[in-house]
Amino acid sequence: MTDDQKRAVAEMLRTGPLDLGGELHEQRRVLVEMLTGIPLPDDVIATSGHLGDIDVVSVDIAGVSADDVVLYLHGGAYALGTAASSVGLVADLMRRAGVRGVSVDYRLAPESPYPAALDDAVASYEALLESTDPRRIALVGESAGGGLVLATLVALRARGVPMPASAVVFSPWADLTLSGRTIHTKSGVDPALTAAGLRTRAADYVGSADPTDPLVSAVHADLTGLPPLLVQAGSDEILLDDALRVVAAAAMADVAVTLQITPGVPHVFQAFAAILTEGAAALDAAGEFLRAHFGKP
Amino acid sequence: MTDDQKRAVAEMLRTGPLDLGGELHEQRRVLVEMLTGIPLPDDVIATSGHLGDIDVVSVDIAGVSADDVVLYLHGGAYALGTAASSVGLVADLMRRAGVRGVSVDYRLAPESPYPAALDDAVASYEALLESTDPRRIALVGESAGGGLVLATLVALRARGVPMPASAVVFSPWADLTLSGRTIHTKSGVDPALTAAGLRTRAADYVGSADPTDPLVSAVHADLTGLPPLLVQAGSDEILLDDALRVVAAAAMADVAVTLQITPGVPHVFQAFAAILTEGAAALDAAGEFLRAHFGKP
Repeated sequence: MTDDQKRAVAEMLRTGPLDLGGELHEQRRVLVEMLTGIPLPDDVIATSGHLGDIDVVSVDIAGVSADDVVLYLHGGAYALGTAASSVGLVADLMRRAGVRGVSVDYRLAPESPYPAALDDAVASYEALLESTDPRRIALVGESAGGGLVLATLVALRARGVPMPASAVVFSPWADLTLSGRTIHTKSGVDPALTAAGLRTRAADYVGSADPTDPLVSAVHADLTGLPPLLVQAGSDEILLDDALRVVAAAAMADVAVTLQITPGVPHVFQAFAAILTEGAAALDAAGEFLRAHFGKP
Repeated sequence: MTDDQKRAVAEMLRTGPLDLGGELHEQRRVLVEMLTGIPLPDDVIATSGHLGDIDVVSVDIAGVSADDVVLYLHGGAYALGTAASSVGLVADLMRRAGVRGVSVDYRLAPESPYPAALDDAVASYEALLESTDPRRIALVGESAGGGLVLATLVALRARGVPMPASAVVFSPWADLTLSGRTIHTKSGVDPALTAAGLRTRAADYVGSADPTDPLVSAVHADLTGLPPLLVQAGSDEILLDDALRVVAAAAMADVAVTLQITPGVPHVFQAFAAILTEGAAALDAAGEFLRAHFGKP
């Protein structure tokens, strides 16, 4: 049964119109259509707003009132995706965590290459700190947003800003040089991503920076001082090794890190929670992890 | 508070008489005294018996009756430790998992080098299968016993024997060549293990075999087909990289694998659950993992 679900998701991705490396404006439209194709549940309230100077979309579940908040960084290879189109996945997670989400419209490449996205993520967290105890905040991100969560934490720590209670990253893209082993070993089973597509977007984002800079590629960062971290990935993705290397770097640096690998599922399989048992289970685990860490010193 | 607990455990290990590489019979006595120093709770029932031709100790908690059983492989660098002296840790885990344990007295090196321990582990599992559905069995082991759990699963799969419901390994020793990065990078913070001590016992166990044989060193094994696997390790151990490499190999091979790294704690910190909050929390998580997987197809 769940094998049928996995096949359906893989087939949808394999035959679908999304091509990360394709013409930028076309692909931006395709991704937003994909993500907003499923209507939101009636109890999800999405509200546009600001954190400091940064555009955000707040995601609330009707009837859920909590002091705790997730600052969310969406995916899209640093060049695609919007806070508004992330609302479905954010709401699915917020419902489980029992908190509210704030999804950040960080600037995209190539119009705004590195460090624009990082600057916006840092600025939005610092603005949130003006009203919220850091122990009441978690950082969550998926794909490029997962790499950006890690870079943001490293940048915040270097600035002496208090860490949030925890962080969760789904299928992080944390190596813009694409040096992971699974870029090759998983290329035959990954229905969503290609090295060529990622390479195009990496060039857009890195611009004139050094792709091995730890703030560009968190696999090269010293992760000392990061808060408890949950990393989830599927085994059918060419970015699997990014997740594994982030976890190894976190463990070496004495971070309380948990890794959950789900076999036979693709990049950011949590986005398919409505039709994939494993996606719902991963979101359940992520919600539980977030709940367990809010309010801890 | 928990930092005080961590310091106390590290100090106890650093100043204690255990020296893995020391004179064998003396160190066997020291380890057994360490492990049996704390009296067992009154409701723990340990019974000597057999699984096929293999000596075992059954561990039951009074009042707990379950169809599910954990086959347990103790630690001790393949040369030390006994099923009887593992009862305290096994009982701490069985209480949480709500099942009974069977700890295996596999033969020890150097008297019985590889593949004696592996043969005994395989034989005990196959004997247990005569009375028990594999979906009602989990394999658990710590340190060398963790490496042995992984080798046992690989050997069972090669023999076409049905896999158990799940497996849990604490601080697995899975590389008898000691090639992990943390052998060096964590030597200053590991209060329990030294590369020299492990090297002595590796020579005892490997004997005339190849230390890179996947059945000797599971970091080199193809882990395809293994059941859901939980790996726990502390960040203050020279064997940390064994845990990380096992998890990477499992993920690459499409195993449903979960890794939990606890910072600032030593090798098999779960054994200190009575005086270390992190040890109790890790056993809680392991018990929950075992419960969640029993009975699954």
